[in-house]
Amino acid sequence: MSDETLAFTKGHGTGNDFVLILDEAGTLDLSPALVVALCDRRTGIGGDGVIRLTRAGVVEGIDTAHPDRWFMDLRNADGSTAEFSGNGARVLGAFLEHSIGEDLSEGFSIETRAGVRTISFLGGHRYAVGMGMGVVTPDAGPQVTIAGVSERRVGVPVDMGNPHIVVALESEDELDAADLASAPTVDPTPAAGANVELVVGLESLPGPVVRGRLRLRVHERGVGETLSCGTGSCASVLAARARWGEGAPVEWDVLVPGGELRVIVHTEGLTLEGPAILVAEGLVDLGALSSE
Amino acid sequence: MSDETLAFTKGHGTGNDFVLILDEAGTLDLSPALVVALCDRRTGIGGDGVIRLTRAGVVEGIDTAHPDRWFMDLRNADGSTAEFSGNGARVLGAFLEHSIGEDLSEGFSIETRAGVRTISFLGGHRYAVGMGMGVVTPDAGPQVTIAGVSERRVGVPVDMGNPHIVVALESEDELDAADLASAPTVDPTPAAGANVELVVGLESLPGPVVRGRLRLRVHERGVGETLSCGTGSCASVLAARARWGEGAPVEWDVLVPGGELRVIVHTEGLTLEGPAILVAEGLVDLGALSSE
Repeated sequence: MSDETLAFTKGHGTGNDFVLILDEAGTLDLSPALVVALCDRRTGIGGDGVIRLTRAGVVEGIDTAHPDRWFMDLRNADGSTAEFSGNGARVLGAFLEHSIGEDLSEGFSIETRAGVRTISFLGGHRYAVGMGMGVVTPDAGPQVTIAGVSERRVGVPVDMGNPHIVVALESEDELDAADLASAPTVDPTPAAGANVELVVGLESLPGPVVRGRLRLRVHERGVGETLSCGTGSCASVLAARARWGEGAPVEWDVLVPGGELRVIVHTEGLTLEGPAILVAEGLVDLGALSSE
Repeated sequence: MSDETLAFTKGHGTGNDFVLILDEAGTLDLSPALVVALCDRRTGIGGDGVIRLTRAGVVEGIDTAHPDRWFMDLRNADGSTAEFSGNGARVLGAFLEHSIGEDLSEGFSIETRAGVRTISFLGGHRYAVGMGMGVVTPDAGPQVTIAGVSERRVGVPVDMGNPHIVVALESEDELDAADLASAPTVDPTPAAGANVELVVGLESLPGPVVRGRLRLRVHERGVGETLSCGTGSCASVLAARARWGEGAPVEWDVLVPGGELRVIVHTEGLTLEGPAILVAEGLVDLGALSSE
């Protein structure tokens, strides 16, 4: 290891993984090239993104009444800036609790590029994240063509801050047969692209509360099929509730390829619950990254 | 992080990456399940394999006159035991030098499941590894069918301790067009399978020594296309020399997708030279791995 090292923590939520870096004073020059190098799965640490934890007051372009709040500076693996990730926020919650020593038991407000969000520790490895409210457009009905799935299907557009097209499939067999190696084609094509969720409703499990239950796979724009998508899970629940109509459950279990999430629909917004696991911590050699 | 942590180092050679673990006393229970969990690129550290560094005397089934020598216990990402990796041995060389404090300037002998191998530090990030001698069977000529490449081609079987089929292509365009998402089919099919190298000869660079120059892509059996293969590079050089005949160069530059290697053919065996980079070191939470 050279003298130029950077402390990191690696964590994931339902298989959506992040490199976490504490930079309280905001002195780290986290260039797109450094993000790409850190996220490289063979020559770097590997991750779907980097989360730099800094204070809101030191971030340029962020207008906040709470400069001392922690700020979630999320970057995608391609180096671009991202607004928010529900899975990432849970992993950041575990980092805030275990590495920084914050108390998340009562709900903890952080600043993000999508505004203020709240993270709560639920016990075990589980965290809840406020996801804001989404907007469903049930009758817009774009036609979606998916490799491995016969016929075109009608999608439901849902805006969760980022754009989603939710497609209900007939069966788990159909869901398993879908080929998401290439992006589904949406007609008409949304101007900014869209994440596409393929969703199958499952039988509710017996219990004191009637909970909805979905299984989904997701194709994220610019990424491909992923193991999990927090906003996609919320979008799928909103589309399912719109389809269900009167008396739809407010609590939903969402099975994603990387695990299981729970989405709860409150009048003031959605909450995403799920696991967050810190896997490793250490030092990365910045000279070794740049030497490749 | 829980109390149950394991110190690790992550490194790579031309993009072939490994999780390195020091276990001098041989007390670590490195089960196949633990190897798989460590190598998972999203929920673990991520790697093509794990290298446990222990002493030869504490390894069951190893008969050595040098029980105090370091032993390279190599495992594949699927948890299976492997004999040797040239890229892995260079990364282990960097680990021995930087993390253990051994002096590799004069050549350093380690024990492996393939026998005694020697690693030498060349300066910079470069290491040389003794690869033993390979056996070329130039006239056996199995037919190889490769997706994206017109017509079947004749392959050259090379045994480097592991089996290779080397296929010379006509041009770099043809090499780029080859689709290695699926394994090439070899007829007759080798009983134990084979790694398949697709190779194009390049113009030698001007210099005081006439060096051969190859570009290759490799499909590793049970893995798929990889960024680099040390034994495959050696096999390709032996096949190219057999084709060249009288006066073939003894030094070869081999361009693999993950970088550049050099292969030198001595009468007593081949030497593989190339970079080895230690990227990060830290602690992995064993409880976090097993909780998934």
